[in-house]
Amino acid sequence: MGLQDKLKNIKSTGISLAATTQKQRNDALIAVKEALISQKESIFEANKIDVATAEEQGLTKSVIKRLGFDDKKLASVIDGIDSLISLPDPIGKVLLSRSLDEGLDLYRISVPIGVICLIFESRPDALVQIASLCIKSGNCAVLKGGSETKNTNRVLFNVISKAASSVLPEGSLVQIEERSEVNELLSCSESIDLIIPRGSNAFVQYIMSHTTIPVMGHADGVCHLYIDSDADIETALKICLDAKTQYTSVCNAVETILINKDISDTFIPRFARMMSEAGVTLHGNNEFAGRLKALCGDDIYCELMNDDDYHTEYLDYACSCKIVDDIDSAIAHINRFGSHHSDSIITQNKEKIEHFMNMVDSANCMSNCSTRFSDGFRYGFGAEVGISTGKLHARGPVGLEGLMTYKYKLYGSGHIVGDYVSGTKQFHFKDI
Amino acid sequence: MGLQDKLKNIKSTGISLAATTQKQRNDALIAVKEALISQKESIFEANKIDVATAEEQGLTKSVIKRLGFDDKKLASVIDGIDSLISLPDPIGKVLLSRSLDEGLDLYRISVPIGVICLIFESRPDALVQIASLCIKSGNCAVLKGGSETKNTNRVLFNVISKAASSVLPEGSLVQIEERSEVNELLSCSESIDLIIPRGSNAFVQYIMSHTTIPVMGHADGVCHLYIDSDADIETALKICLDAKTQYTSVCNAVETILINKDISDTFIPRFARMMSEAGVTLHGNNEFAGRLKALCGDDIYCELMNDDDYHTEYLDYACSCKIVDDIDSAIAHINRFGSHHSDSIITQNKEKIEHFMNMVDSANCMSNCSTRFSDGFRYGFGAEVGISTGKLHARGPVGLEGLMTYKYKLYGSGHIVGDYVSGTKQFHFKDI
Repeated sequence: MGLQDKLKNIKSTGISLAATTQKQRNDALIAVKEALISQKESIFEANKIDVATAEEQGLTKSVIKRLGFDDKKLASVIDGIDSLISLPDPIGKVLLSRSLDEGLDLYRISVPIGVICLIFESRPDALVQIASLCIKSGNCAVLKGGSETKNTNRVLFNVISKAASSVLPEGSLVQIEERSEVNELLSCSESIDLIIPRGSNAFVQYIMSHTTIPVMGHADGVCHLYIDSDADIETALKICLDAKTQYTSVCNAVETILINKDISDTFIPRFARMMSEAGVTLHGNNEFAGRLKALCGDDIYCELMNDDDYHTEYLDYACSCKIVDDIDSAIAHINRFGSHHSDSIITQNKEKIEHFMNMVDSANCMSNCSTRFSDGFRYGFGAEVGISTGKLHARGPVGLEGLMTYKYKLYGSGHIVGDYVSGTKQFHFKDI
Repeated sequence: MGLQDKLKNIKSTGISLAATTQKQRNDALIAVKEALISQKESIFEANKIDVATAEEQGLTKSVIKRLGFDDKKLASVIDGIDSLISLPDPIGKVLLSRSLDEGLDLYRISVPIGVICLIFESRPDALVQIASLCIKSGNCAVLKGGSETKNTNRVLFNVISKAASSVLPEGSLVQIEERSEVNELLSCSESIDLIIPRGSNAFVQYIMSHTTIPVMGHADGVCHLYIDSDADIETALKICLDAKTQYTSVCNAVETILINKDISDTFIPRFARMMSEAGVTLHGNNEFAGRLKALCGDDIYCELMNDDDYHTEYLDYACSCKIVDDIDSAIAHINRFGSHHSDSIITQNKEKIEHFMNMVDSANCMSNCSTRFSDGFRYGFGAEVGISTGKLHARGPVGLEGLMTYKYKLYGSGHIVGDYVSGTKQFHFKDI
């Protein structure tokens, strides 16, 4: 069956799905959870084949770790489903209610977007997560996983889809398996309302530049710490270490550390030794490398880099360093080289904090804390769709509300516009 | 100067503009208003040249009417600017405030999107309107008007831009004049955050399918009235007349009237005579035309149409008619042939109203009133960016908030993620 056929009725399925009750959608999540647990052996079995294939193909250890699906990963996705079940219904929230005139009442009501397409590389748990989010929010999901976990994905999809369809409309979840179908998918603007890509920078960039369907997500995460002249040095050091090394392969890990010239002589020696001890390779331009050498001699290695290369995303034990003249140079650097994701200023000066927060054009502007906090769970959203660096619809960590839109419902009693144009009637606009 | 050069610094100009105070932006609007009034003669002069050229080129009367700019249009845009000045500041609204832990406070704050591009055909008042909306909301505006009003647009732009830059950052408003630059514009995803196209269906479709920049707007407005078997006939007739004839060339005018078969014999004769007297040509499939002939003889002319042609947008004294079996057939028809814009059910039955509102996948679902109500001013939004039939970001009539996004500001006091991962600290998530 071709892709167009597979997606032919998905819009109308989406409308039926949007009309289900909260109980039906929660029951579906319970059914999915129970099916995942009772059929976990067949999932693990399929995953073993994928992992073995990956090992044969010589994929890196970190990739292989990401594509594994074991009891621990299962427990984590089950936790996620449980927390989704406990969240309030995102459908039917009254976002605005206003009487326009006697007997003419307007409501803005939250409704699902309709059909969400998730395209993801490796990480089979992403399939479970996004399928559950779509079930909770009443959206149809079109799922395309990476070929590295095709066996795991197939079993996971079948288990989830069968369990969900015991309660929800048949066809609410659709799986795409062929890589050749991705380009076809990108042109299905009639069937798909939103694409959420998850994967490498290049992968997300490719998706974003090859479709007119709205895309929500982020390509890269070039996050910054700016160590201001008014920084508390101990705080700055602690945050540098956390932001760089607590988990290096995630988008909100710091990639560049900007150091105010006025504290560089105090800060750099301790910073450089700490990073070096943590196994972090420092990269810096001539100025930084020169200053480091003057301060620490040949103790600490620094990889020379060009001034134009500061948009590097390492996702590893490495970071770019630069000395800046003042806060405005730091802001200009971040707005030019950053990815508008998460950037933090370390300073004791409140005015500088406000200036930084207002002038840095990023989804998450922070002060005196690690960039690693930008995350739906840490922000208390309960469930996370992903992090968006786009400015439309949703920005930053996106909770369930990112999968919702709204519609206006206007209840009249024979009202016509002509009466208001002629002046026979006037709007009274009262919130109700 | 090439387009890339013109737009080179616009992102950073946008950041400075976003940091202006409400007073500065309102002062700029006052300056714009005064400049428009004091220089109105040169605007009218330029407009006369455009109108004369249009007449020479034999453009239709309705187009020529749209591209005129006279005292009445000026008064209307001045009214718009006054109402914008009186609206609250859209920047800096606290949309969420939450303490994540002791000394770690999260805020979601409204900020401008950044750089908005308006591409519009004819209607020079659109230039004034969108420029004022962008000034109020702190967004940079890139304006490309239709070539039919290039003289008017040039003068309007110079007047507005000069007045605004007496208060706001130089370069906050940019005009594009060459048609050849539009395609270049569509690829400027680095500089432009959002495109708002205004014009014909084909024009908007073209923009939407030739850019990866987010687009907000609507291509067509194929709006429906469904006359249910439980409709009050007098109400239904009154609303049909208003929705079709009150203003035919607008997107929320009705284009198709669906009539429940159970009331067709009572409704059709009165409906057909009323429409005919109002100068509206009826179009219908075989079933409707046959029924009309059986009921009214050859009194009323009906243009035969195919069942597949029900997505026609007339924007004129014409409408498609169809007899449907029941409410679900009406809903299925609307979801298939409509443009998800504005659709209204006429019925006395409350359950049917709810069913219709929930199952029709449109931005504006209505009952017992004219589709012509879907409009930012009639909804009480004070200012209108346009009407969006997209589901992302903003849907339906879009007020100033459609030009806004938000950023997260997270204020810490030395917080690191490691403490929460290790369990040393726990989030407490308290709304503040």
